[in-house]
Amino acid sequence: INHKVGAKDLQVYREYTSFAIAVFRFVVIFLLHMLAFVEFPSSLSLSADLRQPSEPVTVPCWLTQSIEIMCLLILLIDNVIKMHLLGGFYFVRHKWDMGAVIIIIVSIIDWIVSFSLGCTEYIRFRRILRPYFILQNSSLMKKIVNCLRMTLPEVISVLLLLALHLFVFTLFGMLLFPEYEAAPSNVTMYLINSSTPGPVPTPSEGHQYFHSLLDSLVSLLVLLTTANNPDVTMPAYSRNRYASLFFILYLFIGLYCLMNMLLAVIYNQFRGYFLSSMQSSLLRRRLGVRAAFEVLRRKKCDIQGSENSAEGTIEVGVGGHVIKSIVGKSLLPKHIKSVLIENLERREDYVFSATEFQKLFYCLDSDVVHKQKPAVTWCASPRWRMVQRVFLHKYFTYFGILMAFINLIIITVQLGAKYDSSFRESHSLLRIVNFSFVIYYLVEQAVKVWAFGWRRYLSDNGNKFDAFVTLALVIGEIYSASCYGLPYFPGSKEVVVHSSSSELWNVIRIINILIMVRMFRIIPHIKSMSLVTTVLVDLMKNMKSFAGVLIVIFYAFAIFGMELFHDVIKYDPSFENKTFECGTYEQLNYWANNFDDFFAAIVVLWDVMVVNNWHVFLQVFREKTSPWSYLFFIAWWLLSVIIVLNLFTALIMENFIMKWDRRHQIVQSAAALSSSY
Amino acid sequence: INHKVGAKDLQVYREYTSFAIAVFRFVVIFLLHMLAFVEFPSSLSLSADLRQPSEPVTVPCWLTQSIEIMCLLILLIDNVIKMHLLGGFYFVRHKWDMGAVIIIIVSIIDWIVSFSLGCTEYIRFRRILRPYFILQNSSLMKKIVNCLRMTLPEVISVLLLLALHLFVFTLFGMLLFPEYEAAPSNVTMYLINSSTPGPVPTPSEGHQYFHSLLDSLVSLLVLLTTANNPDVTMPAYSRNRYASLFFILYLFIGLYCLMNMLLAVIYNQFRGYFLSSMQSSLLRRRLGVRAAFEVLRRKKCDIQGSENSAEGTIEVGVGGHVIKSIVGKSLLPKHIKSVLIENLERREDYVFSATEFQKLFYCLDSDVVHKQKPAVTWCASPRWRMVQRVFLHKYFTYFGILMAFINLIIITVQLGAKYDSSFRESHSLLRIVNFSFVIYYLVEQAVKVWAFGWRRYLSDNGNKFDAFVTLALVIGEIYSASCYGLPYFPGSKEVVVHSSSSELWNVIRIINILIMVRMFRIIPHIKSMSLVTTVLVDLMKNMKSFAGVLIVIFYAFAIFGMELFHDVIKYDPSFENKTFECGTYEQLNYWANNFDDFFAAIVVLWDVMVVNNWHVFLQVFREKTSPWSYLFFIAWWLLSVIIVLNLFTALIMENFIMKWDRRHQIVQSAAALSSSY
Repeated sequence: INHKVGAKDLQVYREYTSFAIAVFRFVVIFLLHMLAFVEFPSSLSLSADLRQPSEPVTVPCWLTQSIEIMCLLILLIDNVIKMHLLGGFYFVRHKWDMGAVIIIIVSIIDWIVSFSLGCTEYIRFRRILRPYFILQNSSLMKKIVNCLRMTLPEVISVLLLLALHLFVFTLFGMLLFPEYEAAPSNVTMYLINSSTPGPVPTPSEGHQYFHSLLDSLVSLLVLLTTANNPDVTMPAYSRNRYASLFFILYLFIGLYCLMNMLLAVIYNQFRGYFLSSMQSSLLRRRLGVRAAFEVLRRKKCDIQGSENSAEGTIEVGVGGHVIKSIVGKSLLPKHIKSVLIENLERREDYVFSATEFQKLFYCLDSDVVHKQKPAVTWCASPRWRMVQRVFLHKYFTYFGILMAFINLIIITVQLGAKYDSSFRESHSLLRIVNFSFVIYYLVEQAVKVWAFGWRRYLSDNGNKFDAFVTLALVIGEIYSASCYGLPYFPGSKEVVVHSSSSELWNVIRIINILIMVRMFRIIPHIKSMSLVTTVLVDLMKNMKSFAGVLIVIFYAFAIFGMELFHDVIKYDPSFENKTFECGTYEQLNYWANNFDDFFAAIVVLWDVMVVNNWHVFLQVFREKTSPWSYLFFIAWWLLSVIIVLNLFTALIMENFIMKWDRRHQIVQSAAALSSSY
Repeated sequence: INHKVGAKDLQVYREYTSFAIAVFRFVVIFLLHMLAFVEFPSSLSLSADLRQPSEPVTVPCWLTQSIEIMCLLILLIDNVIKMHLLGGFYFVRHKWDMGAVIIIIVSIIDWIVSFSLGCTEYIRFRRILRPYFILQNSSLMKKIVNCLRMTLPEVISVLLLLALHLFVFTLFGMLLFPEYEAAPSNVTMYLINSSTPGPVPTPSEGHQYFHSLLDSLVSLLVLLTTANNPDVTMPAYSRNRYASLFFILYLFIGLYCLMNMLLAVIYNQFRGYFLSSMQSSLLRRRLGVRAAFEVLRRKKCDIQGSENSAEGTIEVGVGGHVIKSIVGKSLLPKHIKSVLIENLERREDYVFSATEFQKLFYCLDSDVVHKQKPAVTWCASPRWRMVQRVFLHKYFTYFGILMAFINLIIITVQLGAKYDSSFRESHSLLRIVNFSFVIYYLVEQAVKVWAFGWRRYLSDNGNKFDAFVTLALVIGEIYSASCYGLPYFPGSKEVVVHSSSSELWNVIRIINILIMVRMFRIIPHIKSMSLVTTVLVDLMKNMKSFAGVLIVIFYAFAIFGMELFHDVIKYDPSFENKTFECGTYEQLNYWANNFDDFFAAIVVLWDVMVVNNWHVFLQVFREKTSPWSYLFFIAWWLLSVIIVLNLFTALIMENFIMKWDRRHQIVQSAAALSSSY
């Protein structure tokens, strides 16, 4: 326990760590980060495309600026309170918190500068520093960062090996594919005005990809990410088929061996990561329970002190009713509380010893809470009971899934066959089919509610999901029916074609999407699929901290990229009539991928992370700025692909294997249990 | 023991399992597989490029055909012997061996058919079946195949989830990006004659990528492999920036979650794979040693039977001298033999019990053999001894590495600065520098040999490597000096430019490459790098079985692809003057990537495995044949990328983690040892 323990301080501490304050802090940090979307290069336009410049909705400058300084001041106050609570000396030793204070101060200074300059400057350092607050306020994320720092030596050694590999193969490639083998004049001509149609001379490998040392390095670096795979090999391979061996060897060592080594190194570090973090949180909880017991015992001793001082502290326990009253006042989740109180009621007058007290709280650890399903209220009449039994049977559920499946197949066939007419005619077959199926779904759900009874029906999450989707479907169909009439009886075969009725179109789209969403109900019914899905869903829960790291690096790099490359790419209306060389930014119409606003910057970074065609970005920013722009993109590639994606893979594997082992343990222990009887 | 144990059969069995027969079998299988390169669509041309058809060197048909039937007959005989040895009934139960016999018979029938038809047909089923023999003759590979089969249920469930994901997003995408939003007539015009320059209308997302159900499916499947990443998003993203969310969500779930789940599932299956296979081989060896002991003891009992029958079999051991004589006659590797005999000599008259006998052979298990380095023979004269000590010091080695590093930097700078002239002038700076450095290397190695003495010098593998490279360098320099004169003293500044002297060029290239190769010496001196490297090198040793699996699937698919797609793509000389649409097979000059011979087919499969731009292949083979060609490529993608590459990653991780754990164990046990003293 590191905070001050005075009575008043404790009160402040309790309030400081309360749920409301945490939510408030979260909202403030969230607001601060969301500012990036609306601040000066506002992202509130329909598209970032340079060809159709749409005026973005701008938020007045004083508003964003004042929100920002408000958030910063609140964070400053937050940190000052923390400093007060933890005590000055202890606070100084905590590097993370110290850093936060420094960053806040720097940000405020930067804010004052930018406030005096107006609202249209791009370069603001405080924006890059913002995501620090996300890291500072999550212990799990700090832990991940520490883990990454520990794995750094090995990662760096693999990266060095990778660099050596790249370097040697670059020189090797330059020696193997000399530039001057082709007739250079012809090729250069072609490259300069490629728009003229004419015989296409095939430029040699050396000229195209191994032109200079930098070119060769970048060619092979991009090849390492496979983004230019067959292209870079083609000139040499067309000339001599054994040249492919060079590239295959390069890729095999670099991509399949060294990159996988990187994954292995990072995974090795995170092995047991979840297990240890879970264990430590378990340990902390046990410790807390024990401490609570000691506190309770001592209080009791103080009260009863004079009476049974002879008994001493050897056998003193805590009475059941005391615990019960405390549990009743505490802030535990409802279902745990009910279990605890139920346990306690059975032995109200019992005096708990320390170990028994611990045992009592074991139920805190068990994640799985077996809620009891409300019993089915059977009908009085035996005939109705028969009907009810039919609807309660699992085959009825299967039948529902089958119906949804048939519906989906019909939609698919309709989309494939009559894509156009299905959506523009108000009496198309698709609408008729969907309308009928929606009626069936409604009836199905109604019958289920009747058979199960409200309570039991709602106790199952799947049913809730069904009900919600069905309700939405019914509303959609009623709306479309009220606007465009019932799909049946198209009135003596007159087919109304709404060629531009986007509203009908939207309603039909939504209905179809909802029907598809309904199909997800099938997943829990397929056994092996449900295992994988539960792992994925659980993963999402555990991934909060990872998502935080992702947000931090995306945020910082997006803002940094904006400061470096804003307004670098410009569109000229004369480009409309020009034909560009294949595979360039201009030819591929990548005009919307730029660093002119925050949203677009994030999309560009995502595209580079996905790696495919990232050399297009490398090339265009090199042309528009300088070769130094490579550094930004390569740094981003290293960070995102090498570190973060491998980290993500490692976390998924760790999680899956932990789940798998635990499931096996449960199966084994169940087997052991059944065999012991 | 499953084979017959009669005296004569044992003799045959011993010969059957002998090393020579194994090598012979390997050679036969190797020959059989190599045939694919020289058989009818011969790969012995310089290039597979369709634009410059070069007549391949063809091997006469009767030769390949007769080699093939010879190999098949030998394999048949091999299997018949095996059948005889294992006994008919047992053989029938072994599915692998049964399969081999059936395949050989089918192959021979197929061979007879093709022999009567001539030599120019593509479709020969026996070629696809050939790689079966690789699988059949390696127990490790069979084990991997079995492991894969065991992991199949989970893999399939993830694949099903992936298919569901793909399907739902396809429908979703078709609904979100309807085809008819753009003006179709204009776009279709553009697509038909794209060669006409003119205003480029931007086709809508729906029209370009979500045209029909099949198109949408393929677009998103390719997106799942990231091969068309920003391109497929651009039309929609340019129109509305929030469309990117659809694609980001799709990729995040599909690529980063589900694909990683696949890896996790496969890795989970192979966890402990190496450990268990090592343990089982250890167990088998222990069993063998124990069996040998029993045999020896019984023989001794037979001889001494009458004398100490009272003692019975309770305490009977085997005498040391008996073991020694048997060890002397056995076929164990030399260093193990010497250790064994050394151990035995110390206690020649000792009678070994079973456990002691086991202990004796533990040295078989220890992989690490500590060879003693020959001692340095110091010079007599104290002054020379000083000099010798200088050269023996590790700093002298570091100095050598530094020199090599400087040399490499100079080469790099020269390549970067004066790429052209460096290689065409016979008195370029590069040649001068290299010549000087080679002289230094020669001196360095000579000095080392003198200081260490021959034996100690050669006992280190690194020195052997150095000596070899230096020797090659010296030969190269002598050769170039004899042809083009010494690089120094260019004779009153006259610079000879050999513009087309490819020989000088080649010699210089080789010298430079050798100098680079010399740099690899640095790796063992950097600690963390050497760990990673040893893991990689060990990996290569363990990867034999994996390489076998790779060869099997590549071989089978390449031949299958040849049978399906041979001569499908044809080059028309009129294409020379045509401009093709960007991103098509024709525009990218992929002419060398076809299925017209075996080598080219393998390269195409490799390119598809690397995944980038594989949609180009999908597209061209769809156009030239039918949409069913998708099936071939998607099957190959599933097998190679989903199964084999994930398997490779899993094996690398497993190997790395095993190495890592063992190294830690050693470090820990060493620490425990040192602390116990």
